[in-house]
Amino acid sequence: MTSLSQVPQDSPFTIDNIPFGVFSTKDDSTPRCATAIGEYALDLRALSGGGFFSDASVTDALAQTSLNAFAALESKFRTAARNQIISVIKDGKIPETCLHLLADVEMHLPVAISEYTDFFCSLEHCRNCAPMMKDGIPQNFFHAPSAYNGRASSVLPSPSVIRRPRGVFWKTGHDGTRVPTYGAEEHLDFELEVGYIVSKPVPYGETIKVDDAPDHIFGFVLLNDWSSRDLQVFEMPPLGPFSSKSFGTTISPWVITLDALKAFRTAPKHETTPLEHLRYKDFARGTFDVKLAAHLERGGKRHRLATSNLKYLYWTPYQQITHHASANCGLRTGDLIGTGTVSGDGVDTQGNKCELGCLFEATLHGSRPVMLESGGELRYLEDGDSVVLSAWCEDSRGRKVLGFGECRGLIIGPDAPIR
Amino acid sequence: MTSLSQVPQDSPFTIDNIPFGVFSTKDDSTPRCATAIGEYALDLRALSGGGFFSDASVTDALAQTSLNAFAALESKFRTAARNQIISVIKDGKIPETCLHLLADVEMHLPVAISEYTDFFCSLEHCRNCAPMMKDGIPQNFFHAPSAYNGRASSVLPSPSVIRRPRGVFWKTGHDGTRVPTYGAEEHLDFELEVGYIVSKPVPYGETIKVDDAPDHIFGFVLLNDWSSRDLQVFEMPPLGPFSSKSFGTTISPWVITLDALKAFRTAPKHETTPLEHLRYKDFARGTFDVKLAAHLERGGKRHRLATSNLKYLYWTPYQQITHHASANCGLRTGDLIGTGTVSGDGVDTQGNKCELGCLFEATLHGSRPVMLESGGELRYLEDGDSVVLSAWCEDSRGRKVLGFGECRGLIIGPDAPIR
Repeated sequence: MTSLSQVPQDSPFTIDNIPFGVFSTKDDSTPRCATAIGEYALDLRALSGGGFFSDASVTDALAQTSLNAFAALESKFRTAARNQIISVIKDGKIPETCLHLLADVEMHLPVAISEYTDFFCSLEHCRNCAPMMKDGIPQNFFHAPSAYNGRASSVLPSPSVIRRPRGVFWKTGHDGTRVPTYGAEEHLDFELEVGYIVSKPVPYGETIKVDDAPDHIFGFVLLNDWSSRDLQVFEMPPLGPFSSKSFGTTISPWVITLDALKAFRTAPKHETTPLEHLRYKDFARGTFDVKLAAHLERGGKRHRLATSNLKYLYWTPYQQITHHASANCGLRTGDLIGTGTVSGDGVDTQGNKCELGCLFEATLHGSRPVMLESGGELRYLEDGDSVVLSAWCEDSRGRKVLGFGECRGLIIGPDAPIR
Repeated sequence: MTSLSQVPQDSPFTIDNIPFGVFSTKDDSTPRCATAIGEYALDLRALSGGGFFSDASVTDALAQTSLNAFAALESKFRTAARNQIISVIKDGKIPETCLHLLADVEMHLPVAISEYTDFFCSLEHCRNCAPMMKDGIPQNFFHAPSAYNGRASSVLPSPSVIRRPRGVFWKTGHDGTRVPTYGAEEHLDFELEVGYIVSKPVPYGETIKVDDAPDHIFGFVLLNDWSSRDLQVFEMPPLGPFSSKSFGTTISPWVITLDALKAFRTAPKHETTPLEHLRYKDFARGTFDVKLAAHLERGGKRHRLATSNLKYLYWTPYQQITHHASANCGLRTGDLIGTGTVSGDGVDTQGNKCELGCLFEATLHGSRPVMLESGGELRYLEDGDSVVLSAWCEDSRGRKVLGFGECRGLIIGPDAPIR
C-alpha cells in the first residue's frame, strides 16, 4: 500500500489535503468518519479502533456517526490527528480493511447541521444584481456583512437530487399585469458558494474577536445555494429569502480543514477599512486563495458556467463569523455558514464576463441567454440539468495541490420522486 | 389530594388545560416531563414509572429529558395520555412524590428546538408599521403568509434575562447625516406573539394539505420576539432580520395542546379568499380565540402595554405551517414557529389604541411616547424593565377557562452578566 500517498493525477484528495467526511458502504450502512486519499475513503473508525490515535478523545470522537464531536475538539487535537493520518499514509501502513473505493461508498452530511446561515458578501455579485433590484446596492453592504438565516433541514450532501419547488409568485399576464399564482418555479438557479462549519462554539450571550475567528472554523466545503427566483422576487420584501432558498442546499461532503488551507492564506481582493470590531490584524493572510468553478451538464455535455475565487469576497469568512456572533446569538458546533455567491469581474479569452456566480447575473435574469459552447441557449435551469461546483488550491507554478471534490446536484421536475 | 382539580382562582393551569413542559428541581437537576395543575408541577416521568400510562410508547417518551419524543407520537396517543392525566387528577390519586410547587421548580425549554421560523401575518401590525417603512404594506402580504428563518440557538424559556445587544447601525448626527456605528442598541422592543411546536414531521421534499395542518401541531406557547430596532433598520434591506432578532427570543415553558384549545376554535377575524392551497375548509373553526396581553414592569409598577387576540391574524397558524412546508423544506418535530406580532385595531375605554403588539407601533418608533398610568413616558425598553406576556381562553360568560402562564423577560445592560 506504499503507493497511497502517490494519488492519481487530478485527484483532489492529495496527501496535502486529508479532508474529513462521513461515509457508509453497501455492506455496512452505519455512517462512519473517514478521510479521503486518492481514490479511497479511509475509514477512521476502523483505523482508530486499533488504538491508533494518541489521544482517547480523538478515538471517541471518530467513533461517532457524524463529525460533530471531532469538530468540537480543540484544534490542537484535530491537527495532531491529521498529522498522524498523514504519517501512516506516507509510511504505507494502512490496513487494507480500512480502505474503500470512493466510487463504491455513499457520502453523508459531514456533521449534523444545527443551523444554517447564508451571507451576501460579494461586491461584484451585488453590483451585477443591482440593476435588476429595485433599490440597487444596499447602503449597509460596505459597513457589515449581510446575512439571513437559512434552513438546515434541507441541506443535502452531494450528489443530491433537487426537485423543482412549487410556491406563490407573480405571474405576468399578456397585458403586463402581475397575478399571484401558486405553481412550479420557472426560473430555477444555482449559486456558487463556499460553506464552512463551526468547530468551537460561542455560548449564547458571548461574542468573539475577529482575530480569534479561525478558532471557531472546522473547515470548508462547497455550497450550492439553489435559488427559486420567482419565489424570491415574490417573497423578499421585506423579510428576505425564505421558501425560495429552502427547497434544497447542496454541500460537498468532504470538509477541507484550516490546516490544509494554511498554505493558501492570502489577502482579500478588496482593501477595506471596516469598523474596528471587524478589522482582522493579519490582513495579508485574512482569507484563502481557493479557485472555484461551476459547470452545467446538459444533454450529455459539460459546459463551464463560471469561475471565481474565495478571495474575491468583500467580507471574509473571519469577518462573517465575527459579525454573526456579535449580537449574542451563540454559535454551535455543527452550524453551517455559507459565504454567499462568490462572483468576480474577470473575463475569459473571448472577453466575456466569466466570473458570474449564478444565472440571475449571467443571463440578466434570463433576458440575455448564455450561448453554450456546444450549441443551445441557457437562461435558467431545466429539469434534467446537473450543476457541478468544484474548488482547488494551486501552488505558485499553477499546479493543483489539493481540491474540494465536487458538489453536484440534479434538477428534477416538480412531481418527480426524489429517490 | 382530592382538591387538586379545584385549582386556585386565576390559576392558568386548570383541569381543562393540562399543558406539557419540562422542569427540574433543586434536589434533582435532571430535566423531566411534567404537566401543571394549579400551583403544582406534576412529574410525569415519576407518574409513568409505575406503569401508569396504557401505552408503552407514552411511558418511553415521557421518560426523556425533552418533549420531542412525546410530540412525535401520533396525536391519538397524546390525547389518550392527557385524558388519563385528567382522570387521575379528578380521582385524587396522585402520589405526593409526583408533585412539586411551581414556585420551587426551574422550567426548561419544552423541546430541543430544531429550527425556529417567525411569520409576519397581522394586517393591523403591518398597517401600523407601514408609515414608518419606506415601502408601506408589501404587495405580497395578501397572497401568502410572509416569514423569515429565525435563530434557534437563542430561544430561551421564561423567565429569561435578555442582554441589550451591540451591533452595527446608522447613528444620526446633529447635521442629520447617517454614520455607521458599532454600539449598544438604543431602541429595544418586544413583540407580542404566539408560538407553536411541530409534532408530526414533514419529510424533506413533501408538502401538506392545509386541512391536515392540525396533525402537525403539538401545541402553543407565548413568544416574545425581542427586537433591536436600530440593528433591524440597518440590516433589513434586502435580506430581512438577522442580528436584530437573534439576541434572544423568550417562550412560555408550558405547551398548551390542541386538545385543550379545541373548545376555543373560532373563525379568523379577516374573511379572506386565499389561493386554493391555503383555503382551510372549516373556516368557522380555522383559528383560536386566545386573548393576549403584554405588561411592562418598571420601577416596581406594572403597566398594561397591549391586549390582542390570536384570531386577529390575517393568516392563521394552519395556513402558515402549510405555506412553510409548501416548497419542500421539510419540518421536524421540535421546530418552533412564531405567528409574528399579533396586533388588532381595538381601543380602550379612553379611546386610545390598545391592541398594538410592539413599541415600534405603539410609540411610532419612539416619536410619540406612551404615557404610563403611574406617570412617566415610555418610548422603548430600558435596562431593568421586564415585559410579561400572558394569554387565556374564556367561556361564553367571560370567565377564564385556562391560561398559558406567563412569558417573562428582564432587560439588562450590554455588559451585565446574564447569570
